[in-house]
Amino acid sequence: MQTVKDEDGQVTSRVRRTLLPGGLRVVTEQMAGVRSASVGVWVAVGSRDESPTLHGCSHFLEHLLFKGTRERSALDISVALDAVGGEFNAFTAKEYTCFHARVLDEDLPLAVDVIGDMITSSTLAEDDVEAEREVILDEIAMHDDDPDDAVHNLFAQQAWGDSPLGRPIAGTQASITALTRAQVLRFYKRHYRPANMVVTVAGNVDHASAVRTVRRAFGRNNFLVGDEPPVRPRVGTEARRVSAGESHVRRPFEQVNLVLGVRGITRNDPRRFVLGVLNTALGGSTSSRLFQEVREHKGLAYSVYSFASHHDDAGVVGVAVGCLPAKVDDVLETVRGELAKVAAEGITEEELVRGKGQMRAGLVLGLEDSGARMSRLGKAELVYDELLSIDEILARIDAVTLTEVKDLAAELFTQPELLAVVGP
Amino acid sequence: MQTVKDEDGQVTSRVRRTLLPGGLRVVTEQMAGVRSASVGVWVAVGSRDESPTLHGCSHFLEHLLFKGTRERSALDISVALDAVGGEFNAFTAKEYTCFHARVLDEDLPLAVDVIGDMITSSTLAEDDVEAEREVILDEIAMHDDDPDDAVHNLFAQQAWGDSPLGRPIAGTQASITALTRAQVLRFYKRHYRPANMVVTVAGNVDHASAVRTVRRAFGRNNFLVGDEPPVRPRVGTEARRVSAGESHVRRPFEQVNLVLGVRGITRNDPRRFVLGVLNTALGGSTSSRLFQEVREHKGLAYSVYSFASHHDDAGVVGVAVGCLPAKVDDVLETVRGELAKVAAEGITEEELVRGKGQMRAGLVLGLEDSGARMSRLGKAELVYDELLSIDEILARIDAVTLTEVKDLAAELFTQPELLAVVGP
Repeated sequence: MQTVKDEDGQVTSRVRRTLLPGGLRVVTEQMAGVRSASVGVWVAVGSRDESPTLHGCSHFLEHLLFKGTRERSALDISVALDAVGGEFNAFTAKEYTCFHARVLDEDLPLAVDVIGDMITSSTLAEDDVEAEREVILDEIAMHDDDPDDAVHNLFAQQAWGDSPLGRPIAGTQASITALTRAQVLRFYKRHYRPANMVVTVAGNVDHASAVRTVRRAFGRNNFLVGDEPPVRPRVGTEARRVSAGESHVRRPFEQVNLVLGVRGITRNDPRRFVLGVLNTALGGSTSSRLFQEVREHKGLAYSVYSFASHHDDAGVVGVAVGCLPAKVDDVLETVRGELAKVAAEGITEEELVRGKGQMRAGLVLGLEDSGARMSRLGKAELVYDELLSIDEILARIDAVTLTEVKDLAAELFTQPELLAVVGP
Repeated sequence: MQTVKDEDGQVTSRVRRTLLPGGLRVVTEQMAGVRSASVGVWVAVGSRDESPTLHGCSHFLEHLLFKGTRERSALDISVALDAVGGEFNAFTAKEYTCFHARVLDEDLPLAVDVIGDMITSSTLAEDDVEAEREVILDEIAMHDDDPDDAVHNLFAQQAWGDSPLGRPIAGTQASITALTRAQVLRFYKRHYRPANMVVTVAGNVDHASAVRTVRRAFGRNNFLVGDEPPVRPRVGTEARRVSAGESHVRRPFEQVNLVLGVRGITRNDPRRFVLGVLNTALGGSTSSRLFQEVREHKGLAYSVYSFASHHDDAGVVGVAVGCLPAKVDDVLETVRGELAKVAAEGITEEELVRGKGQMRAGLVLGLEDSGARMSRLGKAELVYDELLSIDEILARIDAVTLTEVKDLAAELFTQPELLAVVGP
């Protein structure tokens, strides 16, 4: 049991972990002063586990699990959680899939029961596969209409080409049209095993009773059997190469959206806290260099921010801008100038202090919500090597030095550049 | 002082109100178990207070207040709150403008000081007006690229025509290009008066010390003088007429976005809780009729939901759908069929119970966040006639009957229809 103390030395939360048969992990965190409980089921499968033939299968499957089980129709599933007003949803990422709900504490058993039923006992009926295929084709069209989604998808494709990491999570019109029920079913049986998932609960929750609830809900259909050890996170050593160069897609938007970036660092790289500070100073807030220079001084764009995305063996760091077509050249020149400058000179003492302050408060404020706590537990178990306590994270942020930031900026922003552009 | 008790009879929050010179109201709510404090300054001015010449002025002004005061440059403003990691932003609606921050409790005085400085002592420098004009033109282009924004703007225009309510909040390329600094300055002096605003704070906050902090921050520049009484909310009696008919805008998106609706009810209409239940049953969740019929049974669209929007003397109720172009006719037929059905038959007992459960939990869960509490106080003071306690709201939700829902559905969905369509 891990105990996290706040600054006054008061115990504000408790994290506990239990391993169930089959390798299913249950991790809970009790929070003071909340009436809610958030539960998530995290499955270690995502679009990067898909062969080209199965492109979009993780996301398709995520949708299909809502369509019915041996006990419940799709409507029963919706009705059950809607009746208690729960926020209930799911999402698919490149390395994991998550089903989550936020409910009043007293309704937690119901939420766990519904999600456990979906995970263990989905029927994947032929009719539902066909109906949901249409829904997903609509969703793909919607992403194509969203300038921000479109440019980030294009950037990933430029970075990692026609590999699983380079492909959009939802698949393409062609791949979704071609997927068969038999393929999705095999994918389901292969990846939705207890050892490949973790259930996390945060909020007003008692660990022992949460474990009992999970054991009951996931005990259906002989799911919790065997002694497979939990699947460990993949931990890469170095970020894989990316393909430098430019990609353009012509779309009839009013604005041009562009992402300019370079190879970054992996998720478990100890320098991620250094990168956090660097990213904050560069484009993480309205006082950041890019926001000040691109938007405030030069009025070149409404939206400009920097980002870092991490995978177990890959990462990118970049800058995203939305601007009017006439301003693209000025925007690119300004952004490149700022990147070159931070690579050459690093950041200032004042930016270091401010960056740490932002990360510190962002962490503390962000974790007041039971949903955010639940997510932290899930990612820690599934894709990080460790669960750092809040105090440990604060200590690591605090330990970042000017030299570390400068060295990292110099390493990153002297690499060959990637550029994705979507617009008229 | 208003005390709100939770179900166990425990005091979970306290609302207190103080009137400062000049008519500035300060309302605070203390919450147990949080480390954050959220502050908002709510100004009773928005796009509906603008003549055609001033179209977009409220929003333009909101942006300009971030550009500098007698004491602080734009960068100083950003830096001050970024240094403590505060979430700091503002938005403009049709009937109010809000500046808000969420910070660690110990940083509340800093946040109030910065916002107070902006509100009372903005310089509106000529250079900043010109630079920000470009930023806003970019923002308008961005809204035009967002299918959801575009169709809702078109729907409002169809409903209320070329009146302040029918116009987009941000203005148009033409109106923003034409606005002068002198016009914005006059607008600022006229509307940013103490009697026309309220400061609300929620979280780990002490009322007396918050009032002292506000008095100091807003005491600049002789702001808190005079004895003007606080401006009262406008309370209309009946929703004004809307123009039935269709509007189309051709945009080269992959999807068609449409909004189909009718005249609704005003913000202070006692039937708003009845409409809440009706809206939930109709299209407020995945178990709702529209979601089930349009998306689940027929696979016609990825996104479908119903909504109600309220103003002091106007309101609309509608259904928004995003679908592939080939499916528009089927979508419209299905949606019209569901509206006719609910108008003829009302909803079921089961839907009533479920709708109440959803509204109840949504209320309780939503108010765990200090930002949401702060918003509730601001809207209650500025645009509602009263601040209902959580218990009172729960009681009003609980009191909704099947007959009331049926009567309201029959009244609303037999009116002439409005339709806005954006797409290829």
